[in-house]
Amino acid sequence: VPVDWSTFGVDLHLVPGPGGRRAGLEHALRDAIRSGRLPPDTRLPSTRALATELRVARGTVTAAYNQLSAEGYLSARTGSGTVVADLPRGNTPRARAVPADPQPPRHDLRPGSPDVSTFPVATWLRATRRALAVAPMTVYGYADPRGRLELRTALVEYLGRTRGVLATPDQVVVTSGYVQALSLLTTALVRAGGAAIAMEDPGLGFHRDVVQRAGASVLPLPVDDDGAVIDHLSTLDVRAAVLTPANQYPTGAMLHPRRRRAAAEWALRHDGLLIEDDYDGEFRYDRQPVGALQGTMPDRVAYLGTVSKTLAPALRLGWLVLPERWVEPVVEAKLHADLHTEVIGQLTLADLITSHGYDRHVRSCRLRYRRRRDLLLHRLAGRFTVLGVAAGLHALVQLPPDGPGEPEILARAQARGLALTGLAEHWHTPGAGRPQGIIVGYGTPRDAAYAAAIATLHHILSPPRSPRS
Amino acid sequence: VPVDWSTFGVDLHLVPGPGGRRAGLEHALRDAIRSGRLPPDTRLPSTRALATELRVARGTVTAAYNQLSAEGYLSARTGSGTVVADLPRGNTPRARAVPADPQPPRHDLRPGSPDVSTFPVATWLRATRRALAVAPMTVYGYADPRGRLELRTALVEYLGRTRGVLATPDQVVVTSGYVQALSLLTTALVRAGGAAIAMEDPGLGFHRDVVQRAGASVLPLPVDDDGAVIDHLSTLDVRAAVLTPANQYPTGAMLHPRRRRAAAEWALRHDGLLIEDDYDGEFRYDRQPVGALQGTMPDRVAYLGTVSKTLAPALRLGWLVLPERWVEPVVEAKLHADLHTEVIGQLTLADLITSHGYDRHVRSCRLRYRRRRDLLLHRLAGRFTVLGVAAGLHALVQLPPDGPGEPEILARAQARGLALTGLAEHWHTPGAGRPQGIIVGYGTPRDAAYAAAIATLHHILSPPRSPRS
Repeated sequence: VPVDWSTFGVDLHLVPGPGGRRAGLEHALRDAIRSGRLPPDTRLPSTRALATELRVARGTVTAAYNQLSAEGYLSARTGSGTVVADLPRGNTPRARAVPADPQPPRHDLRPGSPDVSTFPVATWLRATRRALAVAPMTVYGYADPRGRLELRTALVEYLGRTRGVLATPDQVVVTSGYVQALSLLTTALVRAGGAAIAMEDPGLGFHRDVVQRAGASVLPLPVDDDGAVIDHLSTLDVRAAVLTPANQYPTGAMLHPRRRRAAAEWALRHDGLLIEDDYDGEFRYDRQPVGALQGTMPDRVAYLGTVSKTLAPALRLGWLVLPERWVEPVVEAKLHADLHTEVIGQLTLADLITSHGYDRHVRSCRLRYRRRRDLLLHRLAGRFTVLGVAAGLHALVQLPPDGPGEPEILARAQARGLALTGLAEHWHTPGAGRPQGIIVGYGTPRDAAYAAAIATLHHILSPPRSPRS
Repeated sequence: VPVDWSTFGVDLHLVPGPGGRRAGLEHALRDAIRSGRLPPDTRLPSTRALATELRVARGTVTAAYNQLSAEGYLSARTGSGTVVADLPRGNTPRARAVPADPQPPRHDLRPGSPDVSTFPVATWLRATRRALAVAPMTVYGYADPRGRLELRTALVEYLGRTRGVLATPDQVVVTSGYVQALSLLTTALVRAGGAAIAMEDPGLGFHRDVVQRAGASVLPLPVDDDGAVIDHLSTLDVRAAVLTPANQYPTGAMLHPRRRRAAAEWALRHDGLLIEDDYDGEFRYDRQPVGALQGTMPDRVAYLGTVSKTLAPALRLGWLVLPERWVEPVVEAKLHADLHTEVIGQLTLADLITSHGYDRHVRSCRLRYRRRRDLLLHRLAGRFTVLGVAAGLHALVQLPPDGPGEPEILARAQARGLALTGLAEHWHTPGAGRPQGIIVGYGTPRDAAYAAAIATLHHILSPPRSPRS
């Protein structure tokens, strides 16, 4: 008779072995303890409770407990009943103790992450409580694959106000972050017959992997000081292109107004889709903010955003604002990928946006990052060309041809415990003769660690022993 | 000069039109109001603040405000400054008011959902607070694609204890629910060359769609009173099979011990993978619980579970326990799908499991659902054969060949506002001559609505005018 300890503090599934009831129970307990399924200090049910549960005589359970205590598996503690003893461990699979997070580098200026210590934990929790206090219980069931209407409505208002995005909530699909947004949209494009997508070169290699994994091939779209070279699109056999108009990654270039017009013309002429990655559109430091490309041609632009840079990557919350014809294919992809994004985070973010707590947080982060950018410029400008400082959380430090190259700089950084990312890994095809540079992610460290990180960077870039112009 | 109202309570992106500064500002404000980007009652910044922000003379802003007030776009309110007026709405895209959730059916006995009104909101929030109170800020950054170690460790302990699952935390991948788990595993199988997967027939059509969308073809595996007909597997050209051993969906059959052994033999002989869908393994009402298939052959079984039936579908939390060789391919799929599952829910669930609050909730639900099952049996048994009542949240009511068939029963149900699901849609290929039945999801309604739903079902199944044996 298998045993189900369902009336006690914990559930336990036991499969008793051969022999009589007492032997079966002993065998099952031994096995559960040996395998770690009953960890040390687990309190066992009282003999009476277990006997009732198993429909055996109480004496049977008492005898089994006594036997196992004698064998060292159990120990009887006065006042706290019978508990599992701490045995020497065998080599059966066992849960390991939870280790601390892996040791971070001493200094971290890698791009891609905000300062996660700024995540407003208390504010977020308050917003969760507020949102759940007014939510009907139906919110805990299966939901619309596009996401909660509360959030889609709040996003339309927020993105319209801050980024010039024009949409209705019906055009929004909430996703589990930017990567999923890109993957779902690619899936929809591939199913519609679009097998190739243009992506900026240089760009983030991981995003190319995401697109390729979702079934599309990736063609390189060159980038210069004015952002992506849109004219090149017509020479490619593509109907879709991923762009970072507000802040090209990794060069930091802003797509020139002339290029924005050219992109619109390309999309109209080729029935094309522009995929606008507005990953850090909230962080603009100069007086020339540019609105989202989407606002100028909502029929031709899929707008992708995320809270990974403004709040925290751990939340995995992002969104697509789609031309109407792409809503259903993307929703189908979302439905078959994971049904919908989890709801509590969605309701919390909706509350945070409509209560303007999100605005306040973004503004406070913007000030913080602007000060960091200013310090970076203060330390490096004049000696190095630093690009992409008008917006975002990273800058590109160009390495002059007569100085040490990327590999040497990265090696020096590693030797000093500074995590850095070079430009080289961002090219679609690596090759000699490319411009060299360092991507400085100045959002990543905590405030207290930032100045030291920049000092280390400065030291590495201009060591006394290195010849300099 | 584009305008960024970043110093006020809200952020606003304005693109001023042609003409001078005043005309440009007026145009931008008009456009923002017309398009809904500045909704009614939005409070505008003071003329002095905006002038400073835009670096224009204060008189320019005052003039623009006055003009727009004259035109009806703005209204000046004593004591609260200048606000956006409530204009008649044009046909530009606008956020709609959030409507209430769609009207549910009067009675709902569709399977697939628990009673979401049982979700322990306060307990969940307390666990979130506890978990975040001790979490270092690093948890808000990007995380391990397998999921938080806290949760993987808690799951290994819990699943070992309650379901006999044998694993280490390294073999666990946390997913955004069951559908994502199935999709990721299929993706990994397809990339490894496994193009076909056997799935139970009858089974859930949507899960077949998920597998097909992820690139595999689906072959039917027949089901009888002893669960999936494992012998049939050898006749199929497959290396993987999805099974619901604890509670076959939708027949409710339990996989016979003989079949479990046969499944193990098939997996060994064919280098096969058994995909164990343990979607409601926590809900067993009889005295013969069966442990997970995984516990008997951890090398050959991928175990999939979820909190969708025990806590709430809205959480989108599930897991895979994988044979070691499948961990990396599934992690790769997860990484490119959405990087990792959101962290706050993971930490909350880990806290809930280790504090045994999860056990307590499952037990309380089990009692509740058992009472519901008993009422269902009380009303229907004797007149109908009701299958699959030993476990889970649904039962199969067989329709005798001499009574009304599925289409008629479903039509009657619809006429009385009872949402029901028939057996027909679960077959891989629909056809005449199949057994007919109704899947009764007795978990779905609230407690207060359950008796009425069952009474309606009873009435529909045995109307006075219908001939009965």
